[in-house]
Amino acid sequence: MSVNKRGRQSFILPQLPVICHWASVAGKKESEGPLAHTFDITSQDTYFGQKTWEQAEKHLQQMALEKLAEKAGMKQADFDLVLSGDLLNQCIGSSFSLRNTNIPHLGLYGACSTMAESLLAASMVVGGGFADKVVAMTSSHFASSERQYRFPLGYGGQRTPTAQWTVTGSGAALVCSSGTGPRIECCTIGTVTDLGITDANNMGAAMAPAAFQTIQAHMRDLNRTPDDFDLIVTGDLGQLGKDLLLELGKREGLPLGGKLTDCGTLVFDQIAQDVHSGGSGCGCSAITLCGYLLGQLNSGKLKRILFCGTGALLSPTSTQQGLPIPGVCHAVSIITGRD
Amino acid sequence: MSVNKRGRQSFILPQLPVICHWASVAGKKESEGPLAHTFDITSQDTYFGQKTWEQAEKHLQQMALEKLAEKAGMKQADFDLVLSGDLLNQCIGSSFSLRNTNIPHLGLYGACSTMAESLLAASMVVGGGFADKVVAMTSSHFASSERQYRFPLGYGGQRTPTAQWTVTGSGAALVCSSGTGPRIECCTIGTVTDLGITDANNMGAAMAPAAFQTIQAHMRDLNRTPDDFDLIVTGDLGQLGKDLLLELGKREGLPLGGKLTDCGTLVFDQIAQDVHSGGSGCGCSAITLCGYLLGQLNSGKLKRILFCGTGALLSPTSTQQGLPIPGVCHAVSIITGRD
Repeated sequence: MSVNKRGRQSFILPQLPVICHWASVAGKKESEGPLAHTFDITSQDTYFGQKTWEQAEKHLQQMALEKLAEKAGMKQADFDLVLSGDLLNQCIGSSFSLRNTNIPHLGLYGACSTMAESLLAASMVVGGGFADKVVAMTSSHFASSERQYRFPLGYGGQRTPTAQWTVTGSGAALVCSSGTGPRIECCTIGTVTDLGITDANNMGAAMAPAAFQTIQAHMRDLNRTPDDFDLIVTGDLGQLGKDLLLELGKREGLPLGGKLTDCGTLVFDQIAQDVHSGGSGCGCSAITLCGYLLGQLNSGKLKRILFCGTGALLSPTSTQQGLPIPGVCHAVSIITGRD
Repeated sequence: MSVNKRGRQSFILPQLPVICHWASVAGKKESEGPLAHTFDITSQDTYFGQKTWEQAEKHLQQMALEKLAEKAGMKQADFDLVLSGDLLNQCIGSSFSLRNTNIPHLGLYGACSTMAESLLAASMVVGGGFADKVVAMTSSHFASSERQYRFPLGYGGQRTPTAQWTVTGSGAALVCSSGTGPRIECCTIGTVTDLGITDANNMGAAMAPAAFQTIQAHMRDLNRTPDDFDLIVTGDLGQLGKDLLLELGKREGLPLGGKLTDCGTLVFDQIAQDVHSGGSGCGCSAITLCGYLLGQLNSGKLKRILFCGTGALLSPTSTQQGLPIPGVCHAVSIITGRD
């Protein structure tokens, strides 16, 4: 009796939920990159006025939520529900940002796929009539990520060529049952895919198979081809992961060339900004979506995209214990609000 | 246009999703407690045959999922979706348990409220017709929690009188659009509530205000009173948190005495088992629900309960940085399958 389910992993939205408003907050390095003009708020202060980087990340989400309310002409108390998560242990960026706001909250964990996961979940909540005015939100912070996942910044560790640069930023999107703006048509839920990559400095390689699995499932479940899209946008595979995904597509008979781009390659100028394989983190796909991509969809320059959030489901503990890095990818098909 | 929304935080399910099957796996201490006879699988081996406690926790979820499939007469591949999360950094218990199973997965983070959060989310997914045969699942492990949140076990630290004992166990529930079994009527989504408790050894006090806020919202949104329930069951407030919640109820004109119980006080014999304030962890409410409570609902001994998962949204980092402990509580109203 799952009338909206399609195939093994996908579902449709009979009444398309609308992404009415969106907001993005970005850090210093992001504000020097090619998408600088698409962010609502940028700051030159790594701490965003807070005492710690973790508190800075919490504040990023608070600013994104406040900006979203302002753009929507609403108060935060008008939001029905916030679906959010982040990379910090126990997702404290998300939970602390919502302390005593009195907004109902469901916490998600999808690593860097969280922007897509929260958007997908919001589309089900709104599509099922369980709430309206639902916020999908996430964040990441370069400095809080580095010290949690890798080394203290003061250690000055050398980054490998396959490493990516965690984006400092937060994106928030407001999903409603009616209104104007880009609309969510259908989604594909990812499976946990693990081909045995163990190099925690090569997330692109760990996530590319999951991205391919989900894109392939989307095409199969909904009887689509890459030609049905203006763009297929992965979350944060970076240059290396994107190249691997293109190669996988070729081998498996689903060529993605000409359609595929990746938020990790869009958000920074890879050479001038010395970010090695590109951007990463929950904030990477969040600020690229909640700025550039939704802007292009809203103006009609893009007609339909497949937004594929990609996440590497490792922890420092799993890496230290020698385990491989599972990946996941959730896909959201978004169309322009202009017919 | 949110036809199923009620009040600020709640929603109804016009076609009640059915909890068709459930399974529980528990550790040594739990198997010596008062609910021992209600668990499907118990083990005397803390490692459950694995090399590390984190892998043991992953294995707990795998066993629960396998047992659930067996009880349902299904293969794991027949599940449409698994909604799960846990307490480990980056929720590796959940993501590693689903590696290469090919089951669509959405990761959640709600700390010890995860059993209720996953059940609530499953009811929306099934109720909205987006998938059927949806699994709500979570786990915790005493030893993996102790070393992550507190001290290495070998250190032999003294536990404070307010401390709770993290349950080693996993529970999984299968939510379907039809079938026989207890049914989900309506749910209330929690808000992040923080009254400034900073003692990480007193989670009950940190979570009690969130539990009260959600129970109060449920009664208000759905025009109910505690007398409408056989039991109001909180997740893992423990003895101290339960007493605080009773006190809050009295003060605020919503007396809960006679109806309130707590999984943290049910799962262990507090005195004989020397667990101080009671049980805790995602596994606490998970094995109490997916054993004792659903069993009683299924047999008709309980007609209607309000299952209130409670979570303390702290991390060791937030505690070390001197921040208070926000709490959250999600409530699921479940009725007997026997009319």
